[in-house]
Amino acid sequence: GYGRFGIIHVEGAANETTITSRFRLQIDATAESDSGIVFGARARIQQDNDGSSNGALLGSDAASASGTFRNDRLEGGINGVRFFARSGGLEVGVGNIFGAIDSMPGMYPTELGLTGLSYDYIINGAGAYSATYDSDGNGAAGFNGVEVMYAMGDLSAHMSYSELDLVAGNGNLEGDRLEAHVAYAFSGWTVALGLADSDIVTDTEVALTVAGSVGIADLTFGYANNGTQGDAFAINAGFDVGAATRVNVVVLDQENYADTVYGVGVNHDLGGGTSVRGGIQNNNAGNTVADLGVRFNF
Amino acid sequence: GYGRFGIIHVEGAANETTITSRFRLQIDATAESDSGIVFGARARIQQDNDGSSNGALLGSDAASASGTFRNDRLEGGINGVRFFARSGGLEVGVGNIFGAIDSMPGMYPTELGLTGLSYDYIINGAGAYSATYDSDGNGAAGFNGVEVMYAMGDLSAHMSYSELDLVAGNGNLEGDRLEAHVAYAFSGWTVALGLADSDIVTDTEVALTVAGSVGIADLTFGYANNGTQGDAFAINAGFDVGAATRVNVVVLDQENYADTVYGVGVNHDLGGGTSVRGGIQNNNAGNTVADLGVRFNF
Amino acid sequence: GYGRFGIIHVEGAANETTITSRFRLQIDATAESDSGIVFGARARIQQDNDGSSNGALLGSDAASASGTFRNDRLEGGINGVRFFARSGGLEVGVGNIFGAIDSMPGMYPTELGLTGLSYDYIINGAGAYSATYDSDGNGAAGFNGVEVMYAMGDLSAHMSYSELDLVAGNGNLEGDRLEAHVAYAFSGWTVALGLADSDIVTDTEVALTVAGSVGIADLTFGYANNGTQGDAFAINAGFDVGAATRVNVVVLDQENYADTVYGVGVNHDLGGGTSVRGGIQNNNAGNTVADLGVRFNF
Repeated sequence: GYGRFGIIHVEGAANETTITSRFRLQIDATAESDSGIVFGARARIQQDNDGSSNGALLGSDAASASGTFRNDRLEGGINGVRFFARSGGLEVGVGNIFGAIDSMPGMYPTELGLTGLSYDYIINGAGAYSATYDSDGNGAAGFNGVEVMYAMGDLSAHMSYSELDLVAGNGNLEGDRLEAHVAYAFSGWTVALGLADSDIVTDTEVALTVAGSVGIADLTFGYANNGTQGDAFAINAGFDVGAATRVNVVVLDQENYADTVYGVGVNHDLGGGTSVRGGIQNNNAGNTVADLGVRFNF
Repeated sequence: GYGRFGIIHVEGAANETTITSRFRLQIDATAESDSGIVFGARARIQQDNDGSSNGALLGSDAASASGTFRNDRLEGGINGVRFFARSGGLEVGVGNIFGAIDSMPGMYPTELGLTGLSYDYIINGAGAYSATYDSDGNGAAGFNGVEVMYAMGDLSAHMSYSELDLVAGNGNLEGDRLEAHVAYAFSGWTVALGLADSDIVTDTEVALTVAGSVGIADLTFGYANNGTQGDAFAINAGFDVGAATRVNVVVLDQENYADTVYGVGVNHDLGGGTSVRGGIQNNNAGNTVADLGVRFNF
Repeated sequence: GYGRFGIIHVEGAANETTITSRFRLQIDATAESDSGIVFGARARIQQDNDGSSNGALLGSDAASASGTFRNDRLEGGINGVRFFARSGGLEVGVGNIFGAIDSMPGMYPTELGLTGLSYDYIINGAGAYSATYDSDGNGAAGFNGVEVMYAMGDLSAHMSYSELDLVAGNGNLEGDRLEAHVAYAFSGWTVALGLADSDIVTDTEVALTVAGSVGIADLTFGYANNGTQGDAFAINAGFDVGAATRVNVVVLDQENYADTVYGVGVNHDLGGGTSVRGGIQNNNAGNTVADLGVRFNF
């Protein structure tokens, strides 16, 4: 897992400048059968400074940029569990799945600054428009998605199916998401195409990423058709500045965002799994978000 | 701990066929004094696919066979803790105790299939009519039971006392359960007799089990007087089929059940703590329950 | 972490004599940069017998001396996290901070008996009148305090700042606490002076402790000005009786307490991190509190 803490500034928020922190303890438990099938589970115990605890708003008001706590973040216990069985290049996942669109190559070329800032530079809304592994909702393992992943040499494919519970507690599911991607790597470039069929009209329908290196820059181009939200185009450029410092520049344009999203992030490695990170970005509403702090892996 | 996942079918349920999963992380913490007394605590972090999280119904509706979530399963944190002090054959337990009836030899001759199915083949209602260690309710360690266990050679005895809080939050306890069992092993057979005095009229009053082997079959006979629910008689037969496969057959007849309960379970060992498990059974309402999946210990 | 269990008696309580227990699993995660800065986080998974679970009152009523559960103890998940960065004698802490007054030398000369009993012999109300590390509230890491600690030879200093959220959920903070202490050790004695400026009128304003040894007795003298609650004077004497037994005697007089607080505690070491502990004390309301039990570290 890791810990991180620092300062975050969100323009126009109730608390424009606050402390931000996260503690993530990752539990990866596996067992291997005699024939080499690996069975496993991944769960996280995570806590952000702005999450509610067990439905109660326990933190100090100013601890959250918004002045209130995010009730989608139920901190304090374990999140939904992802179970899997893996053999060779084939993996079947169940529960709190990764999702085929959200985990396609090139989807997250970087997480800007210390916290990822607003993530608006990610073409699928950083999981808002797709199935995604949920670290926060420490719910039951009841996100009953299923996915199959396959990798053979330079080719990889991933198909996921997840149920949508749009009206909670009424005893039935109101829809589903079927997602798939294929990715191919050649001559130092990786191309990935994702397709999705979802009962949510704002979901990503098509996603395409192309990633490779030109000189010192690692470039990722992305396109997504995000349903009724329109098209998104993004470019990410990452390059090393000196031996321990990496800079990322992001640009994204999505039809229903107030402005084109721009951002810069810096990650300076201190060794031993520790780093100083910071970034600045304008979010989809046109407001500036900036952060700075340290992160340590354990 | 262990993880397990697979498919479960419950005839007549809101969601007849769903994915089932469980993640159990067991924490056994102990310390030993210079004179050899072992002090310890057992707690579990457990998550089932159909439990509620912190009182909120977070999972997808179809994740639960019933279409709604079990509010007796509060997933995401640690359950009630059992504390103990052990010296030689004597053990004193406090908190979330095992209970003398629920932990008597022969009470759980098998857990059928992947999930134990409906557990209706257990003569004390699988803990429904007795004190039992609760893995799900991640409550405070406020299940203030006390128990004393003693073993000497072929003889073992267990006495437990637990308070009953029938009206929660009114500041007092409305009753209690006193349970005891003695067990004796001789010539390959184990006989156990349990007696209980409880303020709940549907609780088990008498339980008797006899377990031993005849040829390749491991047999367990059980009888319980379950108070106003009448008498229960059960037979369990377990036998190995080949080197890695074990089959269990169960029959139970209880006066107030709709039908006699029948069931078959298969456990195929894959090595390394992994196994494929499945079973089929009719439950106490006469409906068929079946499951199939994998389990891995870690 | 540690576990402890035993019996507690609180005169005049709804349940005068009950079982008491605690399970504490401490998670200390750290990483060290190449230049020797240590980054880390401390979190606890703790469960007391009388805490509520996730806002629900799950335990048996008689498990709590008061007959109801303490809703300031939300058991079952992790508490607020304290993050830190440390280099040489300098440490910066963020989140669920220790607090400069609560962690000054001589503030907790002992924790009486098994449970600390009522803690009324601590001059700052055992954290009730100061910032304090909260083990129970498994809230988000939203206790956004900040502190700086510095030690150089015999001199140490600590300054902490924490926000006060007196009206939860209204989106803003209603005040803050600024605390500081300096401590100096010389000739076997340690003197510490703490000062605080808080928007809570009952908070500690000044605290002074003097600790050292006279013959076989370890003595700690304490004085605190607890705002509108008046002055508190305390003496603690600890001495070893034989090789494995330690006795503590406490006296505290605070202006707004019903009586002078007296108490005696005994700690008998059983080796291997296990001990028998017990104590008796009259609390600030003049009622007698006593406990006896075992504790084991793991």
